[in-house]
Amino acid sequence: MLAQTGTVPSSKIPARMTALRKLKPERGLVLRETAVPQPGPTDVLIKVRKAGICGTDGHIFGWDAWAQRRIHPPLTVGHEFMGTVAAAGEAVRGIVPGDRVSAEGHISCGACLLCRTGEAHICEHVQIIGVDCDGAFAEFIAMPEYNVWKLDPAIPDEFAAVFDPLGNAVHTVMSAGVSGKSVVITGVGSIGLMAIPVARAAGAASVYAIDVNPSKLELAKRLGADETFDARTPGLVDEIKRRTNGDGVEVLLEMSGSGSAIDQGLQMVRNGGTAALLGIPGDSVNLNLAERIIFKGLTVLGINGRKMFETWYQTQALVKSGRIDLRPIITHVLPMREFDRAFELMRNGEAAKIVLDVKGDIAK
Amino acid sequence: MLAQTGTVPSSKIPARMTALRKLKPERGLVLRETAVPQPGPTDVLIKVRKAGICGTDGHIFGWDAWAQRRIHPPLTVGHEFMGTVAAAGEAVRGIVPGDRVSAEGHISCGACLLCRTGEAHICEHVQIIGVDCDGAFAEFIAMPEYNVWKLDPAIPDEFAAVFDPLGNAVHTVMSAGVSGKSVVITGVGSIGLMAIPVARAAGAASVYAIDVNPSKLELAKRLGADETFDARTPGLVDEIKRRTNGDGVEVLLEMSGSGSAIDQGLQMVRNGGTAALLGIPGDSVNLNLAERIIFKGLTVLGINGRKMFETWYQTQALVKSGRIDLRPIITHVLPMREFDRAFELMRNGEAAKIVLDVKGDIAK
Amino acid sequence: MLAQTGTVPSSKIPARMTALRKLKPERGLVLRETAVPQPGPTDVLIKVRKAGICGTDGHIFGWDAWAQRRIHPPLTVGHEFMGTVAAAGEAVRGIVPGDRVSAEGHISCGACLLCRTGEAHICEHVQIIGVDCDGAFAEFIAMPEYNVWKLDPAIPDEFAAVFDPLGNAVHTVMSAGVSGKSVVITGVGSIGLMAIPVARAAGAASVYAIDVNPSKLELAKRLGADETFDARTPGLVDEIKRRTNGDGVEVLLEMSGSGSAIDQGLQMVRNGGTAALLGIPGDSVNLNLAERIIFKGLTVLGINGRKMFETWYQTQALVKSGRIDLRPIITHVLPMREFDRAFELMRNGEAAKIVLDVKGDIAK
Amino acid sequence: MLAQTGTVPSSKIPARMTALRKLKPERGLVLRETAVPQPGPTDVLIKVRKAGICGTDGHIFGWDAWAQRRIHPPLTVGHEFMGTVAAAGEAVRGIVPGDRVSAEGHISCGACLLCRTGEAHICEHVQIIGVDCDGAFAEFIAMPEYNVWKLDPAIPDEFAAVFDPLGNAVHTVMSAGVSGKSVVITGVGSIGLMAIPVARAAGAASVYAIDVNPSKLELAKRLGADETFDARTPGLVDEIKRRTNGDGVEVLLEMSGSGSAIDQGLQMVRNGGTAALLGIPGDSVNLNLAERIIFKGLTVLGINGRKMFETWYQTQALVKSGRIDLRPIITHVLPMREFDRAFELMRNGEAAKIVLDVKGDIAK
Repeated sequence: MLAQTGTVPSSKIPARMTALRKLKPERGLVLRETAVPQPGPTDVLIKVRKAGICGTDGHIFGWDAWAQRRIHPPLTVGHEFMGTVAAAGEAVRGIVPGDRVSAEGHISCGACLLCRTGEAHICEHVQIIGVDCDGAFAEFIAMPEYNVWKLDPAIPDEFAAVFDPLGNAVHTVMSAGVSGKSVVITGVGSIGLMAIPVARAAGAASVYAIDVNPSKLELAKRLGADETFDARTPGLVDEIKRRTNGDGVEVLLEMSGSGSAIDQGLQMVRNGGTAALLGIPGDSVNLNLAERIIFKGLTVLGINGRKMFETWYQTQALVKSGRIDLRPIITHVLPMREFDRAFELMRNGEAAKIVLDVKGDIAK
Repeated sequence: MLAQTGTVPSSKIPARMTALRKLKPERGLVLRETAVPQPGPTDVLIKVRKAGICGTDGHIFGWDAWAQRRIHPPLTVGHEFMGTVAAAGEAVRGIVPGDRVSAEGHISCGACLLCRTGEAHICEHVQIIGVDCDGAFAEFIAMPEYNVWKLDPAIPDEFAAVFDPLGNAVHTVMSAGVSGKSVVITGVGSIGLMAIPVARAAGAASVYAIDVNPSKLELAKRLGADETFDARTPGLVDEIKRRTNGDGVEVLLEMSGSGSAIDQGLQMVRNGGTAALLGIPGDSVNLNLAERIIFKGLTVLGINGRKMFETWYQTQALVKSGRIDLRPIITHVLPMREFDRAFELMRNGEAAKIVLDVKGDIAK
Repeated sequence: MLAQTGTVPSSKIPARMTALRKLKPERGLVLRETAVPQPGPTDVLIKVRKAGICGTDGHIFGWDAWAQRRIHPPLTVGHEFMGTVAAAGEAVRGIVPGDRVSAEGHISCGACLLCRTGEAHICEHVQIIGVDCDGAFAEFIAMPEYNVWKLDPAIPDEFAAVFDPLGNAVHTVMSAGVSGKSVVITGVGSIGLMAIPVARAAGAASVYAIDVNPSKLELAKRLGADETFDARTPGLVDEIKRRTNGDGVEVLLEMSGSGSAIDQGLQMVRNGGTAALLGIPGDSVNLNLAERIIFKGLTVLGINGRKMFETWYQTQALVKSGRIDLRPIITHVLPMREFDRAFELMRNGEAAKIVLDVKGDIAK
Repeated sequence: MLAQTGTVPSSKIPARMTALRKLKPERGLVLRETAVPQPGPTDVLIKVRKAGICGTDGHIFGWDAWAQRRIHPPLTVGHEFMGTVAAAGEAVRGIVPGDRVSAEGHISCGACLLCRTGEAHICEHVQIIGVDCDGAFAEFIAMPEYNVWKLDPAIPDEFAAVFDPLGNAVHTVMSAGVSGKSVVITGVGSIGLMAIPVARAAGAASVYAIDVNPSKLELAKRLGADETFDARTPGLVDEIKRRTNGDGVEVLLEMSGSGSAIDQGLQMVRNGGTAALLGIPGDSVNLNLAERIIFKGLTVLGINGRKMFETWYQTQALVKSGRIDLRPIITHVLPMREFDRAFELMRNGEAAKIVLDVKGDIAK
């Protein structure tokens, strides 16, 4: 296919590349040589430059119960990235080699009800790169044109590399609707942290951040949270109510996945308010639906991924406006070959967000 | 106050009346004479004609754990009713004696954020008649003018007497939004049954009713459900998906309060769909939030009461249009003195909805 | 391209076909032989079976001022149709030859903000088949896979052929939101007529139809309008208000494009109501914005085309449910060769909707 | 009535007061002694401290055509104010003498569909203080308890005095929904100016202000507009499109009431965008509905007044958050006796917003 694409100097695309891969069902990843992927007629081939490490990548690296169920080696890992288009299939219409791009990592089926009604992000047949098929911790990745996002020149590489998790934060904030409202964020991992400047830029009247990690709470403060609280503070629900005329906040952004945080967060929301749930609980959660949701007349939103491509437009507009500065969150930029160190920094909580420099790494 | 209301022949209002009351913390109710309530300057006094028996009244009659916690005798029970205005306080502006009325039984504070932003139905300081203060199983009841609903002459007395539960059904259906959509109703007690013609009239493309009681399911069919299912049918989730192109329904109306029905119902909703929860679980519910709500991108709505008075307008318009016939649901109209028989018919499941004839009973 | 599609007996696709064409800048159309279109890699070739005649086609036939500005002969006309897939390009993934299909006639660019955020129906770079490029009054038409709609077997051919205008009606009704509401429709041409059963099925509490053509108003009554009115009736605004407690209707569906109908219709809408404008005024309209829209707190929606493909799903669901019977509207099904008679029946108002039988015509 | 209010030292309320009145059907106003109004049982009497001058007051002062039609002397003018409660009627429940308050100047009927469904701001039977009945340029004003807004202590008097026009700006911004969006404001009179910081605080990604008055545009810049433009700049529509990727802005806030501004503003909105119209055109407007609204799929919102009391909560929250500084807009605070100078400063465009010091004036 690729050979037919006249505009591409296909001779310059190597047959082999370096990639960070899970080869066996065990802990860790390895940097190995593998074949450069072949794009189909509606795909583009992207030379990866920067890639973000997600908590999901940590699960795959650590080979926990979830990873053992979901991941089928061999697999190239990684789903947050940016780079430059190296080649385009013959039926590609809007992307040309040289375009600077990121891409939506959820490859949807394109044919189902959800895909055809603007909800491709919750397509039941979705394939996630770096999870269900080969991913972005590699010199090259092939993506459907549909998934590719052309980057505005004003967006720095490091920010572009994390449009995926930033998009999670944006989708959560925009779905809940925070304009003029008081907001609690439960859980300030990297997405929870990103949600702080996003909520402020989107017009939140006040933002309260809750976690159990003091250094993350400090970072939350720097990123614009009005106040931060340790989730274990006695009487915390009443504290929040005191700050909101006794009513409770209008919006909860749940980003911890912890059952107790969900329960506590829901108590902080005022009657008629909205709770957007992004954090994924590992297990079932025991919930007093009557007191927490039904009597209160709450709206609870399950949030998954990012809208294609409404969220991407919003994300780019927010970053371009200068109202969102991710620099305090991107604590490390490391060459890809230092992946072991990167995963250790993530595991021990030293890092908030780590971006891998793929290009720098490979072009030794 | 009342004596000052020039337009009212207050001489005709007796000092004493008959009422159905809980006098001691024990099972049962008694028909006793008690004082006619005195309306304040912004209240009206209503001569009750017909009153509906709600499941809540059954809990109070039976004196179960919930009733023992919540109810403080002595108390006149009953919150669904209609009648005629007998007197109006001096500051009442829009209601006059002789008006045929029903009334919203949730007496809200009028001063809080929720009351002042169109959400009085979820006011935190609400007083429910027949629960927190004297109710409607009586010859007279005093109500704030704000709560009173003037009835269109086209509405039959029996229907007007159950605008409260019918309003629950309407509020649930209209909040979820069923126009052009496929709908599952889990739990067809009297409100679940009412939800069937309401959903059809509101434009549902298809309505599937689920319960474990075969006679209620038969009634559901008569009321317009496309299909009815026993909740225990093996593979029921797949059955529903088969009827909706494999996607699942767009809307769940949960009216059972059963944890297993909630779990089953949520499985039947398609990604991106909506679940409106009206049924009140007695206990906490163990819920796989990740699979049932978050990954699916669901919108879950807690539903409480009825909107004041948007729901009342919608309810009246639906009944007036002739598209909702409640006759199959109102299985019994009994004089109030036969209350013991009425509660037994409810308890043993023979009755769907029972309306008490208050006027007929008292005017022996 | 086509020759490479293994699954297609391309030998059976002829090189030439018959089509109804505008060859010169003058009144009328001609039935001529022309080349069968060649689908690209992401296109399908459809053998047309039935095609609807739209008012737009009448403008093109009659060669009025609009047509002279917009249409560039030579052109095959027609944009409402259904048929069977004859061949599929090599990058087509979800459609196979033999599929029974209709198609969205707005070919959007796929790359702009609107296309990428679920609003392709208002893409600024849209090409409309039969207007901007060759259309459907022909034995074959090539369409992007993206535009193709696989038909449910339960949908009759004649109904499927008019999914385009029916979709206009559905998009208007669903955008306005009619569930439980009172509705006025101004203008009952074929789309206005279709809007009547659509609004009823979508849950409208009442539907009033207004026009100046008595036979169309009679048809409106048959299709389920509660009442119909001649637009010139003195005091008509008050008449409508009397039927809605003096408030006015909650929803106006404007389908005439007449300035006076727009003005009259807006007067009939209650404060806080919604007006959806689908009819296209030929000229500017002089409007008292203060009285008609601003003081009333109205929401006015410009409606264009149909949502891709939310409207198509809704349209198919409504037709499948049996709640919409288009038979009274499709007054004529004629062989394509009788096109001159068809356009005359349209022009003189004898026909509501005419469907051309393309297959029957060609296969003499 | 008032004499019966035990808690009020009614002896301290004088029988006579000074007020700024229109006594004859002619230009100008006079400062005269008149009776202190008598509150009814559900009213409160407010001692006015500060009052804002609105453009409407200018029309009444100048006795233009609109004023001659609408105003019936004798009348006390003024509708934007704050003060302290001096007395409360016997049926008043939530307000006590001494409360620091502002009030909604639209006295709605309380009984109609709109009043009972959260849309009292567009009640058809509304009475506006200072227009339809005596207003706030006076030592005392009587208001229904329902209309009174208790002020948060953090709100300065001058800001509280202009909650009415600020509320117009907030209602317009929040109705349109600006979170994350690009916004054009046409017309930066005092409400248009207020809309700038409101839109920014509510999360607008960019705000472009357009007017013909250079000093107002300069003020617009100081208040946070990203860019300001003279409406007569050639190619201005294209200028705006260039700043929004060629698409146009997502939101138009129309605050000029000028027909040409409305036409120009609508051209600047992207397909699928929203236009909120607050400015009141004096005459009918000639509008190309097809090109400006219908083909574009626009949502056009008529905006009137402020929501009771959702807008008041939002307004107070925004001011309290410190994100809205009205000081640059309130260019003058003058004693009420200098009203002639005040109206002249308004007329000649020297002032943006003038606040009258009522208390300071009367207590000579």
